[in-house]
Amino acid sequence: MDLFEAVKKRHSYRGVFTDKAVRREDLVKIVQAGLDAPSGCNKQTTRFVIVDEPELVAKIAQMHPANKAINQAKAFIACIIDKNPDTVYEGFEFEVEDCAAAVENMLLAITALGYGSVWIDGWLRGAGRNEAIGKLLAVPDEKIVRILLPIGVPAEAYKQPEKMPFEQRAWFNKYGQ
Amino acid sequence: MDLFEAVKKRHSYRGVFTDKAVRREDLVKIVQAGLDAPSGCNKQTTRFVIVDEPELVAKIAQMHPANKAINQAKAFIACIIDKNPDTVYEGFEFEVEDCAAAVENMLLAITALGYGSVWIDGWLRGAGRNEAIGKLLAVPDEKIVRILLPIGVPAEAYKQPEKMPFEQRAWFNKYGQ
Repeated sequence: MDLFEAVKKRHSYRGVFTDKAVRREDLVKIVQAGLDAPSGCNKQTTRFVIVDEPELVAKIAQMHPANKAINQAKAFIACIIDKNPDTVYEGFEFEVEDCAAAVENMLLAITALGYGSVWIDGWLRGAGRNEAIGKLLAVPDEKIVRILLPIGVPAEAYKQPEKMPFEQRAWFNKYGQ
Repeated sequence: MDLFEAVKKRHSYRGVFTDKAVRREDLVKIVQAGLDAPSGCNKQTTRFVIVDEPELVAKIAQMHPANKAINQAKAFIACIIDKNPDTVYEGFEFEVEDCAAAVENMLLAITALGYGSVWIDGWLRGAGRNEAIGKLLAVPDEKIVRILLPIGVPAEAYKQPEKMPFEQRAWFNKYGQ
């Protein structure tokens, strides 16, 4: 799929998934796109656990009965960073940005391959869910599941959210003009 | 360009740029890709100032004589977030992640359109450079230039940095196995 088409088509999918499995070769392609993302000083800090073992998928899925994309997911990608990231450039660390860039590459890949997903962050951080999922996936204590991507084949047409027009968010040479 | 080709070809470019200008219609396409990126609760927090006015470009370029991509840039995109972001979901705020996702979309667009760039973050935060650039671009006091993208047409072949192999950063179902 053309890059600009993938960028336009990508949107958060919170609907029902079909029963179709996510193919392992597609999961590898998706995560490879995440590995190819930039990272501060090329430190490549994000780690990934791809969850497609049915019992493990079910354990994570049942943690959120109200979110169809999570409770019907056919696979998950857990994106993992350090709880206390190393500083890599003049006292700054970039693991949150590294992870976000990897997630965006993966969401585009998910779109291009005909799957749907949604970027799960805030919910994960509540009620120790990221710790609980980390334990299920044998994530070391010093690391944390920062982002979770549920994946499946969308069964519903799902409306993209409205976006503000260009001129409300972008300008040439002077802010707001 | 195919999404996966753009993902593979994208890399930080720190070399010399040709004298060729960056076309305004390409700058609009690039920033539109940034606008199309996901954001926490669809709050669309990142703002963009596209710098292509030659005097303004020169003022920013001369701030970093040692970095060829900055001091020879033909245009810049300044990515702007709030200094004190609002919380948008259960006490969490996502402006850094929103901005990073937008930057990644734009880097892929820059690659697909035949330009080169590099994600500038840590350098900006030093010596008040983000404040100084913000003043040049009339960025409101409550906002900050978080990321700067210099853009031009690469004049040199530039080696992509080595990446760790898949099996050192990604696994199925259990971390590290």
